Amino acid sequence: MDEVRLIEIAEDIHADNERVAGELRRRLADEGVFLVNLMSAPGSGKTQTILRTAADLQGRLRCGVIEADIDSKVDAEAVAARGIDAVQLNTGGFCHLDATMVTQGLDQLPLANLDLVIIENVGNLVCPAEFDTGAIAKVMILSVPEGDDKPLKYPLMFSLCDALLVNKIDYLATGLSDFDMTKLRARARKLNPRIEIFGISARTGEGFDEWTDWLSREARRFLAG
Amino acid sequence: MDEVRLIEIAEDIHADNERVAGELRRRLADEGVFLVNLMSAPGSGKTQTILRTAADLQGRLRCGVIEADIDSKVDAEAVAARGIDAVQLNTGGFCHLDATMVTQGLDQLPLANLDLVIIENVGNLVCPAEFDTGAIAKVMILSVPEGDDKPLKYPLMFSLCDALLVNKIDYLATGLSDFDMTKLRARARKLNPRIEIFGISARTGEGFDEWTDWLSREARRFLAG
Repeated sequence: MDEVRLIEIAEDIHADNERVAGELRRRLADEGVFLVNLMSAPGSGKTQTILRTAADLQGRLRCGVIEADIDSKVDAEAVAARGIDAVQLNTGGFCHLDATMVTQGLDQLPLANLDLVIIENVGNLVCPAEFDTGAIAKVMILSVPEGDDKPLKYPLMFSLCDALLVNKIDYLATGLSDFDMTKLRARARKLNPRIEIFGISARTGEGFDEWTDWLSREARRFLAG
Repeated sequence: MDEVRLIEIAEDIHADNERVAGELRRRLADEGVFLVNLMSAPGSGKTQTILRTAADLQGRLRCGVIEADIDSKVDAEAVAARGIDAVQLNTGGFCHLDATMVTQGLDQLPLANLDLVIIENVGNLVCPAEFDTGAIAKVMILSVPEGDDKPLKYPLMFSLCDALLVNKIDYLATGLSDFDMTKLRARARKLNPRIEIFGISARTGEGFDEWTDWLSREARRFLAG
């Protein structure tokens, strides 16, 4: 294995992706669409969070969704069933989305009628952090059952997100988890002092007012140019 | 980007890894060590499951552990604190372990005194499935809060594991999750008819008798040559 050749190829991939991501961001500014890259481990509640977020934003922002999965289209079907414009990307084994895939997804959405598009990235705390999708904002979910030690283990993801949604906070009261919100906040802020942290439950809706107010403010600021 | 060149490089990496994994399996047979590759999403309970498994196997099998993380050594410290031989591998951003990394880990363990070594792979349901670590058995954990739809989304991982541990079954009684064990079993078996499925709670110990009996039987069969 020629390691130098391998590193060159990896650099080519990243340089190419950065270029496409830059083009996409210019297009989003022109077309007036705020694009959010939502990332998390599998099963943290991305789809449920998107459904409730879109519902809460009704009358404030018109939402579309790009769903990504290695296989299946169950998430896009769930989103479309609520009357939200949604497109499903299957990565065919790929562990993350890149800017080219996201561009292809956006091309299938009626952007003229949308203010905000949320990308549900592949469930993975590692690889998606390394690829710029062209999104304007990056948001991650960590769910309470996953534990408060995750910033120690997946530092890149925590260090580059604008907001952290701590989902399934209704699990705190079960006594089954030793999740410590104070420790989590300290660990996340040590990696990323400016990260916004919202405790939410996508099941009950707790905490969604603060989160959607923030999202709506960020989108308005971008859309105002 | 030259896609043909990229695919060739990817094939080189996999062919090279297969060779190292094959060598490692021959060495494990010679030295009498049963190596298990334990995989899951972040926060499914790999470390707690390993701790309880090693404790339950005391007097039956002598256990060692290879901990892998992108960063930090908190897991190896937790394992070593229980008197279990443990080594920590930091992948430095890498999203999975390969056979070379595992060989390096094994070289740091007192193999002559061990019957079983469990690898705690990087928390990721995607990439670790694609790389043969040289392990004799592959085991995955899915935890109840992650949801019963995960076989639909991460089919490769479910299709290649010998056993599936459904962890945090004590969460079923909270009423906070709509996890359906019957659906999960059907979805996993559709991908992998021979997969062994054990419901466990690494917190309470529920289900560990069945799981460790199976593990112990598989290890004995391998060690008997």
